[in-house]
Amino acid sequence: MSAPSYADALAYRFASRARGSDVSLPELPRDLIDFSGGFAFPACLPDISREAGLAAAADYRAETLQYSDVMGITQLRELIAVQAQQDGVQCASENVMIVNGAKHGLDLACRVFVEPGDAVIVTAPTYMTALGILRAHEAVFLPIGQDEAGINTVELEARLTEIETAGRPLPKLMFDVPDFHNPTGITTIAERRRKLVDLAERFGFVIVEDDPYRRIRFEGEAVPPIKSFDRKGVVIALGTASKIVAPGLRIGWVIASLEILRRMAGQKSDGGTSPFNQRIFIELLRGNQIARHVDQLTVELKRHRDVMASALRELIPDCRIRVPQGGYFLWVGLPPDVDADILAGLGALQGVKTYPGSLCFPDAPRENALRLCYSFPSPAEIREGVGRLSRAYHAIRKGRLDDRARAAAMEAALGLATF
Amino acid sequence: MSAPSYADALAYRFASRARGSDVSLPELPRDLIDFSGGFAFPACLPDISREAGLAAAADYRAETLQYSDVMGITQLRELIAVQAQQDGVQCASENVMIVNGAKHGLDLACRVFVEPGDAVIVTAPTYMTALGILRAHEAVFLPIGQDEAGINTVELEARLTEIETAGRPLPKLMFDVPDFHNPTGITTIAERRRKLVDLAERFGFVIVEDDPYRRIRFEGEAVPPIKSFDRKGVVIALGTASKIVAPGLRIGWVIASLEILRRMAGQKSDGGTSPFNQRIFIELLRGNQIARHVDQLTVELKRHRDVMASALRELIPDCRIRVPQGGYFLWVGLPPDVDADILAGLGALQGVKTYPGSLCFPDAPRENALRLCYSFPSPAEIREGVGRLSRAYHAIRKGRLDDRARAAAMEAALGLATF
Repeated sequence: MSAPSYADALAYRFASRARGSDVSLPELPRDLIDFSGGFAFPACLPDISREAGLAAAADYRAETLQYSDVMGITQLRELIAVQAQQDGVQCASENVMIVNGAKHGLDLACRVFVEPGDAVIVTAPTYMTALGILRAHEAVFLPIGQDEAGINTVELEARLTEIETAGRPLPKLMFDVPDFHNPTGITTIAERRRKLVDLAERFGFVIVEDDPYRRIRFEGEAVPPIKSFDRKGVVIALGTASKIVAPGLRIGWVIASLEILRRMAGQKSDGGTSPFNQRIFIELLRGNQIARHVDQLTVELKRHRDVMASALRELIPDCRIRVPQGGYFLWVGLPPDVDADILAGLGALQGVKTYPGSLCFPDAPRENALRLCYSFPSPAEIREGVGRLSRAYHAIRKGRLDDRARAAAMEAALGLATF
Repeated sequence: MSAPSYADALAYRFASRARGSDVSLPELPRDLIDFSGGFAFPACLPDISREAGLAAAADYRAETLQYSDVMGITQLRELIAVQAQQDGVQCASENVMIVNGAKHGLDLACRVFVEPGDAVIVTAPTYMTALGILRAHEAVFLPIGQDEAGINTVELEARLTEIETAGRPLPKLMFDVPDFHNPTGITTIAERRRKLVDLAERFGFVIVEDDPYRRIRFEGEAVPPIKSFDRKGVVIALGTASKIVAPGLRIGWVIASLEILRRMAGQKSDGGTSPFNQRIFIELLRGNQIARHVDQLTVELKRHRDVMASALRELIPDCRIRVPQGGYFLWVGLPPDVDADILAGLGALQGVKTYPGSLCFPDAPRENALRLCYSFPSPAEIREGVGRLSRAYHAIRKGRLDDRARAAAMEAALGLATF
């Protein structure tokens, strides 16, 4: 049966957050190489048969097949707390709540703090999906620049002082990805993390620290989490199993003060995170499989990064690439005569999907760039994908696109925004 | 490590939806008998080992361990569409979206339609958790009474006409549980369902039809879903695996017009419903295990209902109980000298947890009643629990509660609201 077409459908009275037009992605080549979403590398997806079998066993059913406590299974909260303590975070298991992935944590933080028109501090650029969640809460943005040491705290302090002096409402929330930033790959230095906490205390905002990539470090020293500098409960730390086990479990966590956490719990509407999947994750954490898995994954993804960086240097020599010390993303700056939107659109039509950097800016793009994710394709696919991208790049650069091809690329680029 | 106590914590600027005080449940007896939440009967939790093993198998990992499509796995959408078609619903798989339980579907519907101050039609009483979700969206309520045939559509039409005539804003949404209503157990007759669709078309609101209990029918004939009368896309139908397999999977679905469904998808912030759990549910649906399981479950739960109804008749003869033809709940009306809040509180302190009916009313309670759920305890526990409840009941009735005991019961009753 095909979808009923309601010829004289009701004129729906949508909430303002849900208005806006639909754009869809045109059909893309079947052998598409995907540098867009942060999917797991298929060859590294773990075998969780043992843990799934255990979760389904008769002894565990009363836990795994019922509703979970809204806060999550106590044993998992304890394991997460211990892990955070090892990173220098002051917390107990009561400060931990299990959620359906880190994005869910951000959404709950928005529900607790953001009313339409409230300002949220973000880096420009920032994680595109976070922008989507914040926009759904009708936040307005205070975008702050970055350099190699992370968010520009001098700029942030100046802007906050200016807002305070003018007597305008100060931002309520800040969102950042301090380790291997999405999309730029930058890691914020410790001094700036401490400064962020100082500013949060002084100007009364709460920092949402999203840290999915922390354990995927190829080289260099780990920096303590922003949450480790928190003494007044101004940081909400988000974590996820998606990058250290698999996205398909949909397990994330929130670490926050009890006052915030209880309110976030009160905003949940999902009946709790699947206790079946929580039990699988507990067993993986207990068995030390995750540490081993992350070690293997890190070796693999380092190779992906290296292959992508060298292919870009070879085939698109005038782009500026920032090589991250870990994580999933390469941020690729383009010369002004190659518009990143057009390149992303043309690339997609020619078999390589990337995200145009413009999606990562809350307002006008400050950089002409692409986000390339190297987690999902194999090294061979990465080389082939960069080859396809370079052909699109040189076609644009040499002015070989006629108006029709340009319009098609632009339409495809718009479609890429519907991730 | 204990939870850090932020002595000079930040003065959080919460959104208005997240303000309000914390109340917590006092410690309850360890051998508590639970007639409150709609948990599954433990002895009937299914063995999903085979399906979980399959979901974890190497051949499925690329599907089950990655992010799911925001709409869900196509095969599952098709199976749900076929099932809905068998109930007379006009839909295709494109009209189906997988979510994390039916509550998640209601929340997404609110995000798409409800802005603070918008009115939502509910039965009085209605499902307490739905009230919580609607309140989190700062909805205001248009409560409508019920009789044995379901929501009072004459009252509803009169109220809508009155609002329209006065030029006030009409409600945008309606929420109802037409089969074995939560909390009253009433099933809405077909004629009223058709009338609801007519009213929705005429007054321009959308009906959220929550139907978790449909398949748990002990006797009588099934009534077609409200959605089966929908010709203009005015009904959003919610379904769930929680009552036919297990709550722990956190699988629900939404059936709606494409225009609504795309917007609901755009409001998701969870990275999709776990494809691991979707695969488990697909395999259960394909193998016909669910139909067999539901048959067994229905026989079991009918026994629970019968035991609870006869124990109540015997031990609390002056209460008015409505015996439902299916589902999970008995709605128990009390004489005016036994306040339902006090009885629920005293019962909890004495080892039987119930929900006071007052939680189910959007404003002042219209009935002095308790919601008793018979799904979770065994028949022996049901008899014991009703015994405890009757002792609390008779203590109140005979005026045996001193002021202190009364205050403790009232505090416990307030704590019961933090489900």
